[in-house]
Amino acid sequence: MTLDAEPMTAPASRADCEALDRADPLAPLRDRFEIADGLIYLDGNSLGAMPKDASARAHDVVTREWGRDLIKSWNSAGWFDLPVRLGDKLAPLIGADAGEVIVCDSTSQNLFKVLSAAVAMRAERSELILEGSNFPTNNYIAEGVAAATGGRVSVRLCEKDEIAGAISDKTVAVAITHVHYKTGHIHDMAAISARAHEAGALAIWDLCHSAGAMPVDLNACNADFAVGCTYKYLNGGPGSPAFLFAAARHQGQTLQPVTGWWGHAAPFDFEPGYRPQADIRQFLIGTQPILSMALVETGLDIHLAADIGAIRAKSMALTDLFIRLVEERCAGHGFALASPREAAARGSQVSFAHADGYPIMRALIAAGVIGDFRAPDTVRFGFTPLYVRYVDIWDAVDRLALIMDGDIWRQEEYHARDAVT
Amino acid sequence: MTLDAEPMTAPASRADCEALDRADPLAPLRDRFEIADGLIYLDGNSLGAMPKDASARAHDVVTREWGRDLIKSWNSAGWFDLPVRLGDKLAPLIGADAGEVIVCDSTSQNLFKVLSAAVAMRAERSELILEGSNFPTNNYIAEGVAAATGGRVSVRLCEKDEIAGAISDKTVAVAITHVHYKTGHIHDMAAISARAHEAGALAIWDLCHSAGAMPVDLNACNADFAVGCTYKYLNGGPGSPAFLFAAARHQGQTLQPVTGWWGHAAPFDFEPGYRPQADIRQFLIGTQPILSMALVETGLDIHLAADIGAIRAKSMALTDLFIRLVEERCAGHGFALASPREAAARGSQVSFAHADGYPIMRALIAAGVIGDFRAPDTVRFGFTPLYVRYVDIWDAVDRLALIMDGDIWRQEEYHARDAVT
Repeated sequence: MTLDAEPMTAPASRADCEALDRADPLAPLRDRFEIADGLIYLDGNSLGAMPKDASARAHDVVTREWGRDLIKSWNSAGWFDLPVRLGDKLAPLIGADAGEVIVCDSTSQNLFKVLSAAVAMRAERSELILEGSNFPTNNYIAEGVAAATGGRVSVRLCEKDEIAGAISDKTVAVAITHVHYKTGHIHDMAAISARAHEAGALAIWDLCHSAGAMPVDLNACNADFAVGCTYKYLNGGPGSPAFLFAAARHQGQTLQPVTGWWGHAAPFDFEPGYRPQADIRQFLIGTQPILSMALVETGLDIHLAADIGAIRAKSMALTDLFIRLVEERCAGHGFALASPREAAARGSQVSFAHADGYPIMRALIAAGVIGDFRAPDTVRFGFTPLYVRYVDIWDAVDRLALIMDGDIWRQEEYHARDAVT
Repeated sequence: MTLDAEPMTAPASRADCEALDRADPLAPLRDRFEIADGLIYLDGNSLGAMPKDASARAHDVVTREWGRDLIKSWNSAGWFDLPVRLGDKLAPLIGADAGEVIVCDSTSQNLFKVLSAAVAMRAERSELILEGSNFPTNNYIAEGVAAATGGRVSVRLCEKDEIAGAISDKTVAVAITHVHYKTGHIHDMAAISARAHEAGALAIWDLCHSAGAMPVDLNACNADFAVGCTYKYLNGGPGSPAFLFAAARHQGQTLQPVTGWWGHAAPFDFEPGYRPQADIRQFLIGTQPILSMALVETGLDIHLAADIGAIRAKSMALTDLFIRLVEERCAGHGFALASPREAAARGSQVSFAHADGYPIMRALIAAGVIGDFRAPDTVRFGFTPLYVRYVDIWDAVDRLALIMDGDIWRQEEYHARDAVT
């Protein structure tokens, strides 16, 4: 697929949006996802939509691989190899080489492993630097890793403009989420990694909100470790296993502390003592949830049929359009852009602050536009270029404008605090 | 269902076995599993057979909960509550109360959590006691937990007759697998727990080879923590999430070190610092693999329709019969019983040592009897009373006797080391 690098004329009508969709090189891929008629799904940054192939794949894993072939599927269906095989498939999407990525466990668990490894690799240092306003599990996990050092290491929380300045010869690692979960701000992976390395620290990246949504080049940035989930832009299914990247140079040089048998050099020799794998598999622990794991592949296969440059170009165009239309059509209704205005600084999502964000989002969901609300006052919209169309942007803002102009969000039913996740 | 406590007359023919099957109160439950015609599956202690409901449940989770309802299923389909809800369903099978069990992560990970908690709870002590010949991941995980203490704690490996004597005022915890994965020996949970408590140590149990196969009563033994898998006798599917038990008295009193957001007291308040749940949920880390998790329920539902006393009685009868028939019909062929001869001392499995166990097992698998081989010389057979019939025992030994009498296992094709897991 080719990417038209010409700046598009800003669409001024629904017909213009339809024209953009017709010209979109990614448009055919939308058919590979299950999207209900009339639904505008702008929450793929929380849970990606279902690839149509997922249903048949699940059926096959359950009925043939498990039901019929039973125990022999560990070999014949390649269950044992899934973490590495899927990692190798995912690697090109994040600028990693084959053998540097595995799919396993959850993002939180994988972060625990790499932060623990980092703390061991920089045994004379005392600070882990994270972003204070990040999705909190990262900071909670870092707290746990620091606590396990018995006081040697502490967690230093910075906001985005303070990170580079905070890095010093005390820094164990900088562990930042590449795209901020709430604002969509993109951190400069190359600059922060370089600054960390200059100070002798490690650079660890959480790619939850960037993998599959934009080009990521871990090795070009000389990143040390990375983690991320597969259920957002990668469409792996609810809670599908996460991924973990360890640069080839660190493999066999460090040990993560949860030393289970899948990380052993010879897991089937049943040796009495632990002997780590010298490759990426040392970051495995125990038996993986095969069914959830297998479905990761259906999402990856769609990504491998797409051009990540085309994804990024469309992502920027969709988010630009959404911001412009909301600001034009909902002017005076109190929305304040909470994401970077410049597309190059923004991931594939747009947030607006609004004091009544909660009932507004509920009313919008009732109108068939799914976004989400993040306390205290943020309405957040994610744009997955594989299945979100230009015309969806037009229609979503149309419905939002109706809700605002008609004061529909003021209806009592949208204020109960129980439905938006 | 009622349990006929009368000792059965030892069946002397296939017809006797058929009669026992007709009288078996568990017989109707076999229809709830997918078992291919002619297949004799004696490996449910490695991967349990597929409940027929699993296929429809997987389809529903994928197409309706994920595909149609998308993000709202975290609430509407109860995804967030699955670890606790399934834990409550599992609790009666292991003698736990509601609120003491969660389903999540892998057995290895859960063992890491509870061993780490134990080490913190007995901060003045220095030894973790495990069984040296246990399935090695337990000992590997304990090594990792001990290493993280920086030398304060070490792992002491004992064999079964040494465990009680090894417990002392240095002991942090005794962490034993209730039924030995290879021999099927049942450890005396009550006696070892009592001895541990007498010495001020904690009693931790791995129920991988007992949960669902026999009555387990953690609270009657005053056990402190337990872990186990759901993919063997509980039929949850390949790599389905494991379980973790923490006695009510320890909840809110201890912290496991992998402090992810699912273990936070208010996971959706996005507080800056970690604040642990005061209940079993503190042992959660991050987002769970929902599809693999949801299928755990189909297996549990079958167990909840069965009487665990009837399961145990049939398990003892099946294993007794198998031992007797192998010893009668394969006499002189070199099999040496490697499991306890007394049914009361044996889990739901039987192992025989044989110098040529590997090709014998391959030949048996080729004949439609699935067991497994454990190096260096053990053929192992598991008996899930929910779907294994008396007639299956008769037929399995029939096929084994043919293989031995006819020297079929000597054929070259059964010697290649690539097929038995």
